Amino acid sequence: MATTPQATSPENNPRVKAVFDDIRATRKTDFVNNMWRSLAFDPGLLETTWADVKRLMATETLLDPLTKEMIYIAVSIANGCSYCVHSHTAAARAKGMGSEQHAELLAIIGLAAKTNHLATGLQVPVDPVFDLGGPASPAGL
Amino acid sequence: MATTPQATSPENNPRVKAVFDDIRATRKTDFVNNMWRSLAFDPGLLETTWADVKRLMATETLLDPLTKEMIYIAVSIANGCSYCVHSHTAAARAKGMGSEQHAELLAIIGLAAKTNHLATGLQVPVDPVFDLGGPASPAGL
Amino acid sequence: MATTPQATSPENNPRVKAVFDDIRATRKTDFVNNMWRSLAFDPGLLETTWADVKRLMATETLLDPLTKEMIYIAVSIANGCSYCVHSHTAAARAKGMGSEQHAELLAIIGLAAKTNHLATGLQVPVDPVFDLGGPASPAGL
Amino acid sequence: MATTPQATSPENNPRVKAVFDDIRATRKTDFVNNMWRSLAFDPGLLETTWADVKRLMATETLLDPLTKEMIYIAVSIANGCSYCVHSHTAAARAKGMGSEQHAELLAIIGLAAKTNHLATGLQVPVDPVFDLGGPASPAGL
Amino acid sequence: MATTPQATSPENNPRVKAVFDDIRATRKTDFVNNMWRSLAFDPGLLETTWADVKRLMATETLLDPLTKEMIYIAVSIANGCSYCVHSHTAAARAKGMGSEQHAELLAIIGLAAKTNHLATGLQVPVDPVFDLGGPASPAGL
Amino acid sequence: MATTPQATSPENNPRVKAVFDDIRATRKTDFVNNMWRSLAFDPGLLETTWADVKRLMATETLLDPLTKEMIYIAVSIANGCSYCVHSHTAAARAKGMGSEQHAELLAIIGLAAKTNHLATGLQVPVDPVFDLGGPASPAGL
Repeated sequence: MATTPQATSPENNPRVKAVFDDIRATRKTDFVNNMWRSLAFDPGLLETTWADVKRLMATETLLDPLTKEMIYIAVSIANGCSYCVHSHTAAARAKGMGSEQHAELLAIIGLAAKTNHLATGLQVPVDPVFDLGGPASPAGL
Repeated sequence: MATTPQATSPENNPRVKAVFDDIRATRKTDFVNNMWRSLAFDPGLLETTWADVKRLMATETLLDPLTKEMIYIAVSIANGCSYCVHSHTAAARAKGMGSEQHAELLAIIGLAAKTNHLATGLQVPVDPVFDLGGPASPAGL
Repeated sequence: MATTPQATSPENNPRVKAVFDDIRATRKTDFVNNMWRSLAFDPGLLETTWADVKRLMATETLLDPLTKEMIYIAVSIANGCSYCVHSHTAAARAKGMGSEQHAELLAIIGLAAKTNHLATGLQVPVDPVFDLGGPASPAGL
Repeated sequence: MATTPQATSPENNPRVKAVFDDIRATRKTDFVNNMWRSLAFDPGLLETTWADVKRLMATETLLDPLTKEMIYIAVSIANGCSYCVHSHTAAARAKGMGSEQHAELLAIIGLAAKTNHLATGLQVPVDPVFDLGGPASPAGL
Repeated sequence: MATTPQATSPENNPRVKAVFDDIRATRKTDFVNNMWRSLAFDPGLLETTWADVKRLMATETLLDPLTKEMIYIAVSIANGCSYCVHSHTAAARAKGMGSEQHAELLAIIGLAAKTNHLATGLQVPVDPVFDLGGPASPAGL
Repeated sequence: MATTPQATSPENNPRVKAVFDDIRATRKTDFVNNMWRSLAFDPGLLETTWADVKRLMATETLLDPLTKEMIYIAVSIANGCSYCVHSHTAAARAKGMGSEQHAELLAIIGLAAKTNHLATGLQVPVDPVFDLGGPASPAGL
C-alpha cells in the first residue's frame, strides 16, 4: 500500500537520478530503498530530505554511527513508524549491532516508555534542580 | 500539580525508606528526585519501578551509561514526557554530555521525527530485504 | 496559559448557561471545571462536546462508572494530556478508586506501554488466529 | 486483519442499511469503504460516528473541503493511523489535491514534527504574550 | 515482516523452553503467540517481559481480568501498536467481552482521544482542586 | 523550566545575532520568541531550524499562510507539544484566524483523533482502491 504513485522509472527525472546516484555513492551500494522511491514523486521533497539525512546520518559527526542509528530507532518506535523501525534496525545491524545490543536497546526503550507513562500518570512536578533555564543555573547536577 | 498525595515524611514507611536508601547509595548522592517521591504512595510500585531502573540504568551493561541516557531522552521526547525529558537530560549532562552532543542528539531526534511522519504520510511499503523474520534471512544487509 | 480567551462571565451567553446548568445538575455539584470554561469560547463546540461526554460518561451504560474513568485515564496518559490525566484521576477517586487500585491501574498502563514499544520494535507479525475479519472466524480463541 | 467480524451482508440490519444508504447518497457514490463496514458490528457506534463525520466533513462549513481533509491527514499521520492516512489522502486527491500540494502538506507536517520534538526536548517555556487566558489578553500579537 | 530472526525451533534453548512451558501452563493452552516467539531471540528479555506480564495480567489482583484487558487495549490503541490491539482484543474476548462491551470500550477510547486533543488544543489550565500534591489536599472532590 | 541554559545576551554571538536579525526582518517585528532563544545554545541547530521554518512557513508557497498554520497546529496538538500549540495558535490568530475558524479547526482535529483511535481499535483493513502504489493506479477515486 502507498499514498503516492511509485514511478516505474523514477530516474528518468534528472533531479531524482542525481539524488539516487548520491545515495548509492554515499552508501556504497546499488540498493535504493523504498523511502526514497516513494519520495521521488516530488523531486524537491526528495532533495531536501536526503540532504538532511546525509548531513546527519551519513557524515562523520560527534556521535558514532551506531549510536545515531539506535537513537533513530528509539524515536521511530515511540512514534510508531513501522517502516522506519525496519529500515533503521537493518542499518544498525549493518553497522555492527548484534543481538545482545539489540535486546538491550529494546529493553531501555521499553523501560523508558513505562516510566514515561508512570510520570505522566502521576504528573510528577519537575525538580527545580533540573531547570537549566533560570538565571542562576547550577554548574553541575 | 500531581495526581497522588506526596507524603511529608515518606520514609516513615520502611519499604519506602529501603528504596530511597538504595537510590542514595547507588547514585552516591543524598538527592532523591520527585519521581520516586511520587511513586512512594504505593511501596510495591516504587519497588518494582526502581528495581527495573537500577538493573538497566544504574548497572554496568553492554551499552555505555551516556548512550543509555540519550536513548532514554529520545523515547521521552517522542512520548512527550516533560518530567522525563528534564530528569534524563540532567542525568546525561551529569554523565558528560556537553552542549554540542546535546545539540546533535536533538538534531537526530528532530530528523527522525520528520522522516517518521513522512514515511507514515507516504505509507512506504517495507522493503523485503529489511525483513529478518522469514526462513531465509540475509546474512548481511 | 491558554489558547482561547476565558470570559469573565461566560454564562451571560444563554447557550453556555444552559450547558453549565446541565453539567451542574448532572454532576450534582456547583463546580464547573476549566475544560468547559475553555470550551465556552464557542457555544457550538461546547454543546456537542458536553453531549458526547454526558451520553457516555454521565449516563448508565454497560460498563460501570469507575471502569470507564480508568479507561479514560489510560488513553489520556498515552496521549500525554496533562489536563485530562488530572481531571479524570480526580473523577476516578470521586467514584471510589483508592490508592491501591490507582497503583495497579498505573502499573498496567506502564506494562502496556512497555510491551507496546517492544512489539513495535520487534515488528511482531500478527498471529492469524487473532484475525476476526475473515469469513471463517473462530467461535472462540 | 481486523478485530471485529465483518458481516457478509451487513445491510440485512436496517440500521446499518440506513447509514450505508446515507453515506452513498451524501458522497454520491456506490462505494462504502471498510471503516464503515468494520463499524457495522455495532449499529449504535456506526450511527454516531457517521453523524459526526457527516456534520463536519460532508457539510458546508467555514473551512473549505480540501483544507479540512489536509488537517485530517495531518492529525492521522501524527497519530500513526495507517487506515486514516490512506482514506483521507484518497479523499483529498478526490477533492483536487495535486502532487505538489501533497508534497507541501507532507513537508509542513514533517517540519512541525521536527520542531515539536525540538521544543519538547528543549522544554521551551511558553512566552507570556502567547497566553490568551488571562484577564488582559492582547488585541493582536 | 519482523526485525529479529524467528528461530525454527526456539525451544532448543532451555531458557526459552522454560518460559514457553510456563506460558502454556499459566494460560492452559498449547498456543504460544508470536510476541513470545519474537522475544525468544534474547532469553533474558523474554524472561523479564514474561515475568512482568504474568505478575500483572495472569495473576489474581485487585482489578478483574477483563477490566485489565480493556485498559491494556486502551493504551495499545493510543500508542498505535497494531500487534497489541489484536492480541489483547482476542484476550478480552476470551475473557468474556461481547460485541456490545467492545463497542462501548471503543466509544470511550474515541471520546477520550477527542477530548484529549481538545484540551491540548485549548491548553486548558489544570483546576487547583485537581492537585493532590499539595500539603492540604481535599478529602473529597 | 528548560533543559538548556538561556544566555542573557545570546546576540553577543554573531551567528545567533544574524539569525535573530533575520527573524525580526522576515516577521517585521522586534519580538523573538523563546523557541529561538532556547535554540541559541547551539548556533548550528538554530541556523538549520530557522532556515527550514523560513523556507516553508515565512515564504510564499502553494498553500496559503493561514492553512499552513492550521496544519502546523494539528500536528502539534497530536504530538502533544504545548509550546508549539501556543506559538502557532498565536501565529494563526495573527494571520486572521477568528474564533469560529479556531473552533472548527479544533472540532476537526478532535474528530480525526476519535476516528484515528476507532480505526486503530478496529484494525480496519485498507481498501485496495486507496492504494496508489501499484502499477495500475486509478485515475480518480
